[in-house]
Amino acid sequence: MFQILSLKNGLDNVQGFFNGSTNVGLRTKPNEDGSLDGDVAFIRSEVPCDVAARFTTNRFAAAPIKHFQRYPNDFQTNFILINAKNANAMTGAKGVEDIDDLLNKLESQITLHNPIMSSTGVIGYRLPLEKLSTAFDHFDFNGKQSEKTARAIMTTDSFKKEICFKITLDNGDSFHIAAIAKGAGMINPAMATMLCFIITDADIPRGDMDELLGNAVENSFNRISVDGDTSTNDTVLLLANKASGAYDKEAFREALNKITFELAMMILRDGEGATKVVAFEVKGAANNEDAKKASMLLSNSLLVKTALFGEDPNWGRIASTIGASGIECDEDKLVIHYDNLLIYSGDQRELDKEREEKAYKIMKQESFHITCDLGLGNGSYTSYGCDLSYDYVKINAEYRT
Amino acid sequence: MFQILSLKNGLDNVQGFFNGSTNVGLRTKPNEDGSLDGDVAFIRSEVPCDVAARFTTNRFAAAPIKHFQRYPNDFQTNFILINAKNANAMTGAKGVEDIDDLLNKLESQITLHNPIMSSTGVIGYRLPLEKLSTAFDHFDFNGKQSEKTARAIMTTDSFKKEICFKITLDNGDSFHIAAIAKGAGMINPAMATMLCFIITDADIPRGDMDELLGNAVENSFNRISVDGDTSTNDTVLLLANKASGAYDKEAFREALNKITFELAMMILRDGEGATKVVAFEVKGAANNEDAKKASMLLSNSLLVKTALFGEDPNWGRIASTIGASGIECDEDKLVIHYDNLLIYSGDQRELDKEREEKAYKIMKQESFHITCDLGLGNGSYTSYGCDLSYDYVKINAEYRT
Repeated sequence: MFQILSLKNGLDNVQGFFNGSTNVGLRTKPNEDGSLDGDVAFIRSEVPCDVAARFTTNRFAAAPIKHFQRYPNDFQTNFILINAKNANAMTGAKGVEDIDDLLNKLESQITLHNPIMSSTGVIGYRLPLEKLSTAFDHFDFNGKQSEKTARAIMTTDSFKKEICFKITLDNGDSFHIAAIAKGAGMINPAMATMLCFIITDADIPRGDMDELLGNAVENSFNRISVDGDTSTNDTVLLLANKASGAYDKEAFREALNKITFELAMMILRDGEGATKVVAFEVKGAANNEDAKKASMLLSNSLLVKTALFGEDPNWGRIASTIGASGIECDEDKLVIHYDNLLIYSGDQRELDKEREEKAYKIMKQESFHITCDLGLGNGSYTSYGCDLSYDYVKINAEYRT
Repeated sequence: MFQILSLKNGLDNVQGFFNGSTNVGLRTKPNEDGSLDGDVAFIRSEVPCDVAARFTTNRFAAAPIKHFQRYPNDFQTNFILINAKNANAMTGAKGVEDIDDLLNKLESQITLHNPIMSSTGVIGYRLPLEKLSTAFDHFDFNGKQSEKTARAIMTTDSFKKEICFKITLDNGDSFHIAAIAKGAGMINPAMATMLCFIITDADIPRGDMDELLGNAVENSFNRISVDGDTSTNDTVLLLANKASGAYDKEAFREALNKITFELAMMILRDGEGATKVVAFEVKGAANNEDAKKASMLLSNSLLVKTALFGEDPNWGRIASTIGASGIECDEDKLVIHYDNLLIYSGDQRELDKEREEKAYKIMKQESFHITCDLGLGNGSYTSYGCDLSYDYVKINAEYRT
């Protein structure tokens, strides 16, 4: 057995890792309190780390992803350089050369071992190399400032996303897993415009890293949807420097799953203009694939999302979306619940006043659960979505201006 | 050769057809000028008509569609009864029985031959049969009031949609095709929550009706998208009573295509909260299927739609959406135009000030054309979308209340 304890100060807890950030003038808009967040950040390990990664499925993967993929399998790295405000996407071969140039400059300041770059921001512009390289004179390469680092990678995020767990095993050994993430818009099953950097001092074998990261991503970032769009830059990285000498696979799995799920929920809660988070559970489907199809369509449907925002218990939109998903379904067998309240069944189709009042109350919550039982088989899937508000339109209509 | 002339008063021009409407209390909100539209309408032919139809692909097809589908192939009808404010969807076997009951009552007033019903409105409530049947005492079964009939079938539509063409052949013979339609929200490739009733006095063979209607729908209603959702009630009906004795297949094809395309564009312009209509042409794709996939994803993307509303020439969202569609594509070969303005190519990636200014001007138009040439093959497809505004959210958050 093992214990999992949540710690403050995110990345700073992990042995042998440093992090920091600075502002080089890409981010010019101050926060409400007058402070100005960084726009370039780094995460560094004293010793080279094993790496596991998951990237966007977008065919126009950004330059940093192409740069990463040039490294041989099973490479090790000691450095991640991250910038906001410019995605370095759709920049062609030059975009990758720019990364090489920048990392070459960085090498005069600090020892690099297969450095990785990661970017987020506007698509279609070359990196401002001169500006970015001024960061290298200001980085404290032996510093630990997780909160600032987490803030430096934000774009439309309204709050920073960082998390750290200390895992203590029965024999008293312990290790840490910590992560920072950014993401608020364009989040989709295929994890869009989100960056997540996870570091650990666990003595985890390389083979476990890829397996456990893949499972964790599948059950977290790949199940959330803010608007159904998929970006060019999505990246989840896991770096392990083994510094603690401690490891237990089940403990690591559980802690990593918690971390990615909590970060995914933070991203969803921070969905552009979102006011509530809803779990869409589809069960009783003919198979898991059908359940996933219907569940994802529910969390992406504009009509469902606006009904959630309007707090309107209009189950017709839920039913219609399931019907539109093209999966096997039968209106006489379908049963819909909001939390524990029966909303629709073949025998109780119309919502009477009493149940409607109860439904309103459930929908006023910051989060609730919609369960659709198709009554056909054992297929099930849960995805997580948010509502669509005026602010979503505002944020995205005015993004670049 | 032939001439096509546009006539006022829609349905009223077609020989041997009558139409009318009344308000039975389902629609209670008056128009801005104080008038109150009908909520029940009919279209009637003196003689039984051949019928062609296209329906929603939603698995939860509404009761009126199930009722229609009970008729044998090649049946004839002389009557369509239409109501707004209640979709009679997700109402099970009872929903179909209700239609039988209602049409039985109607039969005491007028001779019916395989009557058809069509409904639009809120999902999940039984038809109010008592109220609906009061319409039968008020209908003028020999009247012609196309404009009122077109208004009676509206839901969130902000304007009525009716159209009539008179087609004159070289030998002087002529026939009419006229249609009314409703639809503003939930319009999607698979033609959602739209109803369209087309009547003609052309002497068209039954075989031509199905072929020509199928093509017309494929090139019009199936190419527009307001929000990517698909409803339970979508219906396109074509009724032909042959009363004119005149017919020419090419003339009919052209006129029908014009009618369905113009109605589709009206529906798109009336898209809930839409301020502009955009054609998304994808060409140079590896095949037509790829082109369709990318084109439909573009007209459905929330990020593209909000960028259109914001009049932001952010081609990154166009590119990213193509990349996300999963089709074969290459960022070095892609070329994007807004109308005739080059927005992106492998050689001209960044938008300079001059082109950006021009792009702003193009985007300020009520409608424009976005062309994405993938540079790979001969596949092409054009779909039509609209922007997403604050009003979309408002209309759909408050729909039932």
